[in-house]
Amino acid sequence: MLKLRNEGPIGVYDSGLGGLTVLRAVADRFPREDLVYLGDNARVPYGTRSPQTVVNYARACASVLRGHHIKALVVACNTVSALALQVLDAELFFPVLGVIAPGVREALLVSDRKRIGVLATSATARSGAYERALAALDPQAQAFVRPAPLLVPLVDEGWLDGELPRMAVRKYLAPLVEHDIDALVLGCTHYPLLAAMISSELAALSGKSVPVLDSAQPAVDDLVQLMETRQLATERDDPGKVRIILTDMPYDFAIASRFMGQDVTKLNVTAVDL
Amino acid sequence: MLKLRNEGPIGVYDSGLGGLTVLRAVADRFPREDLVYLGDNARVPYGTRSPQTVVNYARACASVLRGHHIKALVVACNTVSALALQVLDAELFFPVLGVIAPGVREALLVSDRKRIGVLATSATARSGAYERALAALDPQAQAFVRPAPLLVPLVDEGWLDGELPRMAVRKYLAPLVEHDIDALVLGCTHYPLLAAMISSELAALSGKSVPVLDSAQPAVDDLVQLMETRQLATERDDPGKVRIILTDMPYDFAIASRFMGQDVTKLNVTAVDL
Repeated sequence: MLKLRNEGPIGVYDSGLGGLTVLRAVADRFPREDLVYLGDNARVPYGTRSPQTVVNYARACASVLRGHHIKALVVACNTVSALALQVLDAELFFPVLGVIAPGVREALLVSDRKRIGVLATSATARSGAYERALAALDPQAQAFVRPAPLLVPLVDEGWLDGELPRMAVRKYLAPLVEHDIDALVLGCTHYPLLAAMISSELAALSGKSVPVLDSAQPAVDDLVQLMETRQLATERDDPGKVRIILTDMPYDFAIASRFMGQDVTKLNVTAVDL
Repeated sequence: MLKLRNEGPIGVYDSGLGGLTVLRAVADRFPREDLVYLGDNARVPYGTRSPQTVVNYARACASVLRGHHIKALVVACNTVSALALQVLDAELFFPVLGVIAPGVREALLVSDRKRIGVLATSATARSGAYERALAALDPQAQAFVRPAPLLVPLVDEGWLDGELPRMAVRKYLAPLVEHDIDALVLGCTHYPLLAAMISSELAALSGKSVPVLDSAQPAVDDLVQLMETRQLATERDDPGKVRIILTDMPYDFAIASRFMGQDVTKLNVTAVDL
């Protein structure tokens, strides 16, 4: 019976398409596992919603994934990780992992003076989740969290180069540089597509190299540990299947494919109405 | 019996808070009418959704307003006007007005060469609704519609001045100027807050003064005509009551107050869960 359970897929949940960066990292690390991705792109962005609305959305989405008999859930969305992770973890009977603690842990590893900057959505910033996660890991460390609501639409628009995104990035980084941060966490799955620009602007503004961290890889590290501890690995030998479920069909999959690092239209993509 | 019906409120529906500019215009013109505004800000922006999703949202919202016994409905949202107006009009038993035809009509009045530019959300642009509305009014006229997805978050962020919004505005206007437009319709209720900048950038880029049109006032003109034709005016003499219903409570009402032109927290604001 226990083994049957191991043949369920790993679930990855995001408010939209940005979590495909996390799906890709999970697929790279677990090529034999079946994966099912739920992107609630009909209601993206979550980052401007109230906490109760985010919790309601997260419950509805987790319930879809539960229907696919997942054995573990990675919440790729920072906003959901910030506002609904505890509720999901309490209500669901499979393990649930978020992206906030892993990102903060990684930042502490590379930071000398423990002054951690975070760019995030408005809802994540307001939640205080990064401050709490940091305090739990190192009470001496300081978090400086800056909401950056323009970055998601910039990425969605595909404006990743040039003066306009640079100006927005600079505007968001300036107060963090004033706080003399020595590591920066990208607190939203959309931001890694701007990582190179963020990194160069941060270096230019602060006059030194400051590490910029994406939570996808550290979140996968947590998943590796979970899969080992709970002995959840599949016993099959064939390549795992990847299934992508969206709550709204996008007009084109260009941005999704950029997040995923491959042509998403060649994957198994279906829509669900929530 | 008929007169009782006249004591119902006028409904104004928008995907978020931007439609408060239309509510304000309606309140100014009809001070004795009760008004009820429904802002679906839990699911804003509609502009990036698929047509079916917008229709589903519009049905749910119209149903809330129907519960308030409205006698007429103004759809302030361009995206809903573009994608769901016909469905609403067919399914509801009170008259439904949109903002696209009025905006286009106004543009034709001030344009000499009938080359009408439109800035709009992605969904409105894709819908072809502006092109159809223009063709219906003047088959010789030409529409040039440009999706401008960054403008809504810029307004929500409150970045209404300075180089960053100017650069975004210029980027969106440039192709319209190349088409030598001689009138510009602001095809989203958020854009009027950027109207001054859009107007000055458009003049700078095109080397001449080009009229920039907001659909709120022409939409109210349509409502005036409807109220007269159908004899829907209230017979009460006391000031009308304004009620604002939102699907999510915003953290602060600064932007809402800017749209409404007065402190929204002093109005009757309630939340509904859809």
